Amino acid sequence: MRNLRMTVAYVGTRFAGWQVQPGLPTIQGVLESRLGALLQERVRIAGAGRTDAGVHALGQVANLMTASRIPPEGLRRGVNARLPEEIRILDVAEAPESFHARSDARLKEYRYRIARGEVVSPFVAPFALPLRGPLDVEAMRSAARTFLGRHDFTSFCPAACRVEGKERTIVRSEVVEEDGVVEYRVRADGFLQHMVRTMVGTLLWVGRGLRRPEAIGTILETRDRAAAGPCAAARGLVLQRVFYEDGSCGFW
Amino acid sequence: MRNLRMTVAYVGTRFAGWQVQPGLPTIQGVLESRLGALLQERVRIAGAGRTDAGVHALGQVANLMTASRIPPEGLRRGVNARLPEEIRILDVAEAPESFHARSDARLKEYRYRIARGEVVSPFVAPFALPLRGPLDVEAMRSAARTFLGRHDFTSFCPAACRVEGKERTIVRSEVVEEDGVVEYRVRADGFLQHMVRTMVGTLLWVGRGLRRPEAIGTILETRDRAAAGPCAAARGLVLQRVFYEDGSCGFW
Repeated sequence: MRNLRMTVAYVGTRFAGWQVQPGLPTIQGVLESRLGALLQERVRIAGAGRTDAGVHALGQVANLMTASRIPPEGLRRGVNARLPEEIRILDVAEAPESFHARSDARLKEYRYRIARGEVVSPFVAPFALPLRGPLDVEAMRSAARTFLGRHDFTSFCPAACRVEGKERTIVRSEVVEEDGVVEYRVRADGFLQHMVRTMVGTLLWVGRGLRRPEAIGTILETRDRAAAGPCAAARGLVLQRVFYEDGSCGFW
Repeated sequence: MRNLRMTVAYVGTRFAGWQVQPGLPTIQGVLESRLGALLQERVRIAGAGRTDAGVHALGQVANLMTASRIPPEGLRRGVNARLPEEIRILDVAEAPESFHARSDARLKEYRYRIARGEVVSPFVAPFALPLRGPLDVEAMRSAARTFLGRHDFTSFCPAACRVEGKERTIVRSEVVEEDGVVEYRVRADGFLQHMVRTMVGTLLWVGRGLRRPEAIGTILETRDRAAAGPCAAARGLVLQRVFYEDGSCGFW
């Protein structure tokens, strides 16, 4: 068996997220069915990040085991020709037999876009949360820095989330403003369900003056979902890039 | 009656073009129905450019006569709240009674994007013609310059096009390459039906070595649609900006 690593980009708007769900269009589901049709075998793929419904990706990474001898280039071309335009395999490469896109991922980077101003361009709208009114971006920057380091993120995932161990290490957490778009960039060794979106919802509390930047520390310590802000809309979120031990990564 | 000038942006993918057509979703049709609902009167708008089905706009300009006293800001907000996300009124302003968006337009600029490379990002695909294989951009640049000045564009519109006078003056005609996208920018005092797309189709002949750059002059002189290249796909085209005598213009 060969192990192939793929980098995948997608516009998630009309999909029910990455992970296969019976009866719903998902990125993983579409990829598996198109790969299966091309390779003439039952295909299972593992993705580095299980993005939610409506979330996009520029550099999702996935791997698949196959008995086929198709060259990586041929696989990429053949599958892209069968995929809907919203999903594209950017790159396929041979990987070591032991490679696993999810468990081997060392860091992942997500970005969240907030469109400012009275009118949001229709070219930006599908990829951003529209937000009018005053926003203290400096306060958000200060709050974002508080996330850096290792913390327990119980307050930032659904109470029902049953993962063992909710500590994660944030290595990048910054707010960038350009051309009427405020973008939050966060890189960590892992993310819990809804974690980025809840971090954004809480940063927006700070930006709108509902909490002070220092409140982030308290919210983290409380370990109570009710202490954090709302989960921000999926459309603003993009899985930007996945990093592996060998320095390789998804496109960006 | 007041005369209001609007700047409009739209993603044209799922619309049958600007102009009202019975039973089909058009930009003008949607705008007139939403404006009518807000103003409680029958509304007719005139647009500067009648973009084809699938063509986009960043700075279309239109005007409407209204008996309503609604302030421009209120109109913009009220209509945007009723419009599908793919259409946005960027700006509304009072205009002189005599202003007409189409007949007063002095110059219009269109841009056409060609996505290069093996794989087209799903974020770019809805707004570009995908094109693989070699492309001589220098030859296209040279050919593009030949369009500058006043010419008869009979070869660049459908044979059935019954406009009186097919001479147009091109004041900008250049090819720009950036980040794997080749963009053609053309500004003129007016455009015939399919004119930009046929110019692009012909420039692509040159880029692929099927014609030499000097052929453009001959194709113009021939005044025969059969002499020019194919009409390039609508998705790559954007109405960028409209210029008026007073220096005002659409957004860009």
